[in-house]
Amino acid sequence: MSFSPLVERLMETLRVLPGVGPKTAQRMAMHLLERDRDGGRRLAEVLDTALEQVGHCQRCRTLTEETVCRLCESPRRDDGVLCVVESPADQLAIEEAGGFTGRYFVLHGHLSPLDGIGPEDIGLALLEERIAEGQVQELILATNPTVEGEATAHYIAAQVAGQGVTLSRLAYGVPMGGELEYVDGGTLSRAFNGRLPFSALR
Amino acid sequence: MSFSPLVERLMETLRVLPGVGPKTAQRMAMHLLERDRDGGRRLAEVLDTALEQVGHCQRCRTLTEETVCRLCESPRRDDGVLCVVESPADQLAIEEAGGFTGRYFVLHGHLSPLDGIGPEDIGLALLEERIAEGQVQELILATNPTVEGEATAHYIAAQVAGQGVTLSRLAYGVPMGGELEYVDGGTLSRAFNGRLPFSALR
Repeated sequence: MSFSPLVERLMETLRVLPGVGPKTAQRMAMHLLERDRDGGRRLAEVLDTALEQVGHCQRCRTLTEETVCRLCESPRRDDGVLCVVESPADQLAIEEAGGFTGRYFVLHGHLSPLDGIGPEDIGLALLEERIAEGQVQELILATNPTVEGEATAHYIAAQVAGQGVTLSRLAYGVPMGGELEYVDGGTLSRAFNGRLPFSALR
Repeated sequence: MSFSPLVERLMETLRVLPGVGPKTAQRMAMHLLERDRDGGRRLAEVLDTALEQVGHCQRCRTLTEETVCRLCESPRRDDGVLCVVESPADQLAIEEAGGFTGRYFVLHGHLSPLDGIGPEDIGLALLEERIAEGQVQELILATNPTVEGEATAHYIAAQVAGQGVTLSRLAYGVPMGGELEYVDGGTLSRAFNGRLPFSALR
């Protein structure tokens, strides 16, 4: 036996959500059908609207339902510094950390030739146009510290070279509040090689 | 900063799902918007259809999009034994365990006067009608072994008394494959009091 076909189909479809296996999907379907039908209807509606209306900012490519996102519209940000990130979630993490006052450019991924993801898929033509506008003085390549993120940063660096833009990359090192014992070897040797004079640290 | 209003609203709304906190909701929203828009659209549609069409079986009250569910329609089940459960998930668990060939009645909850849940909310009038049909010889009260489940079983037992129906309740005892060391005291003393002659066990 199983649930009715439509209930089974709902359980299956809930598994499009990341981290949701068969047991969780069943619990979610039962919760919505048995205890929160209004919530379920609201979810269906908002999901539909969001997928319909949320696209990419024409300027920085972040997720937004506007043509140009609020951060790109803001007159208070520094046009001279552009921070390239892989995802809107990375952008949010940097904003929440605070301190950065420049603008962003969101790749929505990284170069991955094996998966068929090339420069055009991560918006590098638009990035090139942005640089050509001439306002950007520093480009911070804040792609992930992974093999693909590094490769993407190198590709962009090569593309931008010779246009008078300073390139930078986030510092590597031990995470704040972490314990050395639990830091992986690669990070630790990077932190050793990149050690700073004590007086340079505030 | 935060995401755009519509993306934020999607993240908030995803929290109607049980066990989904702010971080998981963000991960789900990003996954759907960034990597699986087709899956998200399918989810919105199936959710909408299911909430629209899935109701309760007119006979046993389980969740179904049919007027009468497949199990109630089946000519192969025994009309003489009716098993009362709190939820469709409990019903499925019993079916998956196998061996029970009777029919079900689903309460969708238990009596809970403090929450304003009375006999009419758990379909006891329909259960009474079913008993009055005269086919049911044994009523298995398979409500949960909790205070509310016990109270509900007692209430139904009192309601059905004197109608010539045998009442039963699931056996209490130590779970199969469990280790005695980890079984709670209440269950253990129940299992002691209800101990069976060795020859009765196969």
